[in-house]
Amino acid sequence: MSNETRGLTLVFTGNGKGKTTAALGMALRAWGQGMKVLVLQFIKGGWKYGELKASEKLGSNFEIRQMGEGFIRDAGPEGLNAHREAAQKALEEARRAVREGEHDMVILDEINYAISYGLVNKADVLELIRNKPPRMHLVLTGRNAAGEVIELADLVTEMREIKHPFAAGIPAQKGIEF
Amino acid sequence: MSNETRGLTLVFTGNGKGKTTAALGMALRAWGQGMKVLVLQFIKGGWKYGELKASEKLGSNFEIRQMGEGFIRDAGPEGLNAHREAAQKALEEARRAVREGEHDMVILDEINYAISYGLVNKADVLELIRNKPPRMHLVLTGRNAAGEVIELADLVTEMREIKHPFAAGIPAQKGIEF
Repeated sequence: MSNETRGLTLVFTGNGKGKTTAALGMALRAWGQGMKVLVLQFIKGGWKYGELKASEKLGSNFEIRQMGEGFIRDAGPEGLNAHREAAQKALEEARRAVREGEHDMVILDEINYAISYGLVNKADVLELIRNKPPRMHLVLTGRNAAGEVIELADLVTEMREIKHPFAAGIPAQKGIEF
Repeated sequence: MSNETRGLTLVFTGNGKGKTTAALGMALRAWGQGMKVLVLQFIKGGWKYGELKASEKLGSNFEIRQMGEGFIRDAGPEGLNAHREAAQKALEEARRAVREGEHDMVILDEINYAISYGLVNKADVLELIRNKPPRMHLVLTGRNAAGEVIELADLVTEMREIKHPFAAGIPAQKGIEF
């Protein structure tokens, strides 16, 4: 971890496309600077091949760990426990990363959504943010970011959907959605 | 260029952080899919080391071409011509990329801003969008996206600034701003 950096807490929220995508771009920029990046997925499952393949190619300084179980809306009532378990596991990984302090940037992908859906406790996440090493960048994505999370953050952008191809019946496209 | 892809036109606009960053994330995802990506910078100059270094490491399928001359607000009246020249050069490169159709994704970074500042003609950009190969993804970033650009786009997200560290006196940080 570099000495001169002041670690920031960033939040990408809102209903528009670009939250996870912006976090990935941030990760690429940091990786380009020689920083060590960890991406923890709290919700999304095994379908985002583009970034998974990219992270394999980028080597050990760019790691994506998937624990989420796909989109929550696909889950039946009994599926919710599996989602909660996966999100809790992601939270544990996040705590370990914050405790060990070996990464320059840790991205908690869809954690806001996981909070708002009750998969992780808001209080646990707030504690995680407060405990982060001073030089670590922490990026939290997902819609419905909690007011207290926004309060603690240094930078918050709301991605607002103005237009989306799904609304026009265009299916998910390689390189864009996955 | 792959056969099954329907190329989309995407716009990231608004006053918040995350526009160029989301485009970079999109580029990384596409690159991970084995796609060929070209990033053309219409405004920003030589200070974004993170992504430049990253693009060097990613090889020939991920190319960033800088022609912009730094932030426009740093330019005196005589500097404006240099900006216009750089933006026009970027537009020429974009036209060539659209004509040759060798890239799966072309990112026109800060082109919206370049239009609104009068560095490139809106009509020229609209023509560019209309002429893009059917399978090419085109990504246009920058604040103040023109209504006609939004009209032509398949996906538009407005990045709204909720909170920014500069406002709290925190300077630009490695891995975040550059």
